[in-house]
Amino acid sequence: MKLLLRHCDILAAGETGFRALKDAYLGIDGDTIDYIGTEGPKAAYDQTKDMSGRLLLPGLINCHGHSPMVLLRGVGSDLPLQEWLFEKMMPIEDRLTAEDIRAGNALALLEMISTGTTSYSDMYFEPQTAAENAIAAGIKANLSRPVQCFDKDERYEDNFRARQSIQLFKDFHGAAEGRVRIDFAIHAEYTCFEHIVRPYSAACRELGGRMQVHLSETKKEHDECVAKYGKTPARWFCDLGTFDSPTAAAHCVWVTEEDMALMLEKGVSPIHNPTSNMKLGSGYAPVQRMLDLGLNVALGTDGAASNNNLNLMEELHLAAVLHNGYHRDPTILKPAQLLAMATRSGAKLQGREDTGELAVGKKADIIALDLTKPHMYPDLDPMALTVYSAQGSDVAMTMVDGKILYENGEFLTLDADKILYEAKAAVKRLYG
Amino acid sequence: MKLLLRHCDILAAGETGFRALKDAYLGIDGDTIDYIGTEGPKAAYDQTKDMSGRLLLPGLINCHGHSPMVLLRGVGSDLPLQEWLFEKMMPIEDRLTAEDIRAGNALALLEMISTGTTSYSDMYFEPQTAAENAIAAGIKANLSRPVQCFDKDERYEDNFRARQSIQLFKDFHGAAEGRVRIDFAIHAEYTCFEHIVRPYSAACRELGGRMQVHLSETKKEHDECVAKYGKTPARWFCDLGTFDSPTAAAHCVWVTEEDMALMLEKGVSPIHNPTSNMKLGSGYAPVQRMLDLGLNVALGTDGAASNNNLNLMEELHLAAVLHNGYHRDPTILKPAQLLAMATRSGAKLQGREDTGELAVGKKADIIALDLTKPHMYPDLDPMALTVYSAQGSDVAMTMVDGKILYENGEFLTLDADKILYEAKAAVKRLYG
Repeated sequence: MKLLLRHCDILAAGETGFRALKDAYLGIDGDTIDYIGTEGPKAAYDQTKDMSGRLLLPGLINCHGHSPMVLLRGVGSDLPLQEWLFEKMMPIEDRLTAEDIRAGNALALLEMISTGTTSYSDMYFEPQTAAENAIAAGIKANLSRPVQCFDKDERYEDNFRARQSIQLFKDFHGAAEGRVRIDFAIHAEYTCFEHIVRPYSAACRELGGRMQVHLSETKKEHDECVAKYGKTPARWFCDLGTFDSPTAAAHCVWVTEEDMALMLEKGVSPIHNPTSNMKLGSGYAPVQRMLDLGLNVALGTDGAASNNNLNLMEELHLAAVLHNGYHRDPTILKPAQLLAMATRSGAKLQGREDTGELAVGKKADIIALDLTKPHMYPDLDPMALTVYSAQGSDVAMTMVDGKILYENGEFLTLDADKILYEAKAAVKRLYG
Repeated sequence: MKLLLRHCDILAAGETGFRALKDAYLGIDGDTIDYIGTEGPKAAYDQTKDMSGRLLLPGLINCHGHSPMVLLRGVGSDLPLQEWLFEKMMPIEDRLTAEDIRAGNALALLEMISTGTTSYSDMYFEPQTAAENAIAAGIKANLSRPVQCFDKDERYEDNFRARQSIQLFKDFHGAAEGRVRIDFAIHAEYTCFEHIVRPYSAACRELGGRMQVHLSETKKEHDECVAKYGKTPARWFCDLGTFDSPTAAAHCVWVTEEDMALMLEKGVSPIHNPTSNMKLGSGYAPVQRMLDLGLNVALGTDGAASNNNLNLMEELHLAAVLHNGYHRDPTILKPAQLLAMATRSGAKLQGREDTGELAVGKKADIIALDLTKPHMYPDLDPMALTVYSAQGSDVAMTMVDGKILYENGEFLTLDADKILYEAKAAVKRLYG
C-alpha cells in the first residue's frame, strides 16, 4: 500500500540537523518513506491523506524507562532516592504478578503512543508480557530483564534473572519484523557483583546483544563505587566487559571527564532523564559537555514513579530550558540538538539505524503535531515550537512502520477501555 | 441560579493546606461556593452536573505575564536576555498597534482559559484592549500599563505611560463586578529613573492601587543597580515608596537575604517564573527560602516569548521538580506548597481574598482535571497527580464566578475561530 501525506509541514532530515518544509508531501511505500518534497511526487499513490495544520516529526524514542511502574505513579513522592527505592518501590514491586506487569505495561503504552513515542527501551521483570503487548500494539521496543544480585555468594549459574534475560533474547529478539528487540541489562553497579557482571556481559557479547545499565545516577552511588572498588562505575563496567557490547547508560549525572572519554571510546550512549534527575534530586547531567565531546546522547523518561509521566515531549521541553538555567546561558542546547536527542540519537542507541529521521529510505515512524491549538500559534519557527511550546497532548497522529497506531484521540491497535479496566483491577489487587 | 456539582473528587481548603475528598459534592449559589462535602447537601439546587472522573481544584492564578507577546512566540530563541529583549523583542513591539495587541491578548486568553487559569496579572501597553477582552471573556485580570523612562530629562508630568496607567485605573478598576482590576506597574529599576518612580509610586498609594514590578531577574540587572545606586533593586524601590503599596515582584532570582527581609516587612509578594528563568538562563530563585521566611510566593508564566507558553500547569510541574535537582534534595517544595503558590497565594497577591481556594463562602473559581486519561491513573495521591502528572490539556472545565468559560475543548464565552483568524491577520501585518 502506498500512502501520500499532503499539505503537511515537515521537520525532515537535513545535511546538518533538520530542514523545515512548509505545505509539503511525504510519501510512504509499505513501511518505508519513499518521497519528501514541496512539489507533488510523480509516482502514483493508492491513498492520500490531508495533513493541513499538522507538523510531521520523526517519532520520539524514549530510551530509558520501567514501563509497568505506572502502577506506582504518585507513591512515595518527595523522598530521598535510596529511601524511595528500597522502602517504597521495592516492597510494592515484590507483590507484582506477571498479570499486573502486563496491565501496567499496557497502560504505559497508551500514554507513550498518545504522546508521540514510536519506540521505547525498557528495563523490568516479566518482560515477555511487554514483548507480547508491543507485538499487539505495533510499537517498537528494546526490552530487557535487568540482572541484579543481592547475595554475594550466589553463583552466576544460579542467578535466575540472567537466565530469564538470555531466554527472553532467544524467544523474542527480532520479533514482529524486528520491531521487538531484546537487550541485555544490568540494573546498576550498586545492585550487582563482579562475578555476575563479567559472565553476563560475555554472554551479551557472544550473542550480539546490546546492553542497558543505570550509570552514576546519584553522587552516593558514584562515590561509594569509587570507595569500594577504587574506580568509577563506568570504569568498573568497562573492566568487566560490559561496554564491549553497544551500551545505553541511563542518567550519567555524575560521570567524570575520564568516564566520558571512556564512553566515547567504547561507543556507550548516555541517556538524559531530566525530570527524574530533577524530581529525585539527583543533579544535572553534563549534557552539553557530552554533546560537545561527540557522545550519542539520547532522552528518556525513566519510570513513572519518578517522573511521574512517560511523556517524551515533556522531557524535551524540560531538557531545553533546564540547562540554560543551571549554566546561566540561554545559548546552550539548541533546539535541533534536543530534537536529535529525542529521535535520531535514540534510534542509534537502540540499534535501529533505519529510523529516527524523516528521509527517503527510512522507516515511516512519524508523528504529527496539531498546529491549530492556540499555544502553537504563530508558527514562525517550527523547531522552537516543537521544543518549547508543544505538549504531549498535541500529538495528533502516531505512525510506526507506516501503520497508524493513534490518531486524534483514538487508539487503532489497542483497546483503551479494556486496558484501563485491567489497570484498575491490578491497582485494586496491589493496594486493596 | 444554584448549581450542584456531584460525584467529583475535590482538593478543598483544609485547616493546613488542602483536604482531598472523594466522590463528593460542591454546591454553588450564583458566583459563590455554598456547600462542600461527601454527603449530599440538604438544600435544593436548580441544576446538578455529574462530574465523575473529575478532580476539582481552585482556579489557577497566573501572576506575571505580558499576554500579547504570544504574537512573538518563538522569535529570537536562545539569545542572552538583554540581546533578546533590546534587539529582538523591542523592535517588533514598536510595530504593534492596539489592534494587534487586542488580537494577541485574545489568543493568550484562549490558551490560559483552556489550561485552567481563572485569573491573571499582566503588564503591557494598550491594556484597555485586555480590559475589554477580559470583560467579554469572563476571566479575572489584574491589568497594568507599565511605566518606563529612557530619557533622564523627561519630567514625570510628561511621561505618557504614567498618564495612561492612571487613566486606565480610573476607567477600568473594579469593572465587571470586580473581575477586572487595574494595577500600577513599573517595568523595572533598569528601565526607569528615580524622579519618575517616586511620584508614580505616590500616586499608586494615594489611589489605593497595587503595584507590579520586575525585580532582580538577572545578575546583571541586580549587580548594575548596586554599582549605580549603592543599593539593591528591592532597596531602591522601597526607598522610592513603591513598596508602600501592596507589590507583586516578578522573578526575584537574585534577591539577597536583606531584600527578602525587606519584602516580608513591606508585604511584597514574589512571583516565581520557573520556565522563563530557566529558558533565559537567569538562574534559580530562592523559592524554598522565601517560603520558609513566610513570603507570599506566587507563580507566573511570564510572556510567551520567554516561555514559550502561558500554561500554569506546566509552571507548577517545573517548579515542583526544578529546585529538588538544584538543591539535590527531593524533600523540598511539597506538592501542597506548590499548589498554594498557584492558587491561594496568587489570590492574595492580586488583592482577591475572596478566591484562591475551594471553601464555602469563596467565589466559584474552579477547574476540573480529567482523571480518565492514561497518565492520570492510578489516582492514589491527587496532590501528587496534580503537581507531577497533570498537563494543561487535562483541564476539562474552567469556571469563574460560577460561570463556565471552557468545557471539554469548547470555549463558551469566546469565539475561538474568530480569535485565531484575527491573530493570524496580526501576525501577517507584523512579519509580512
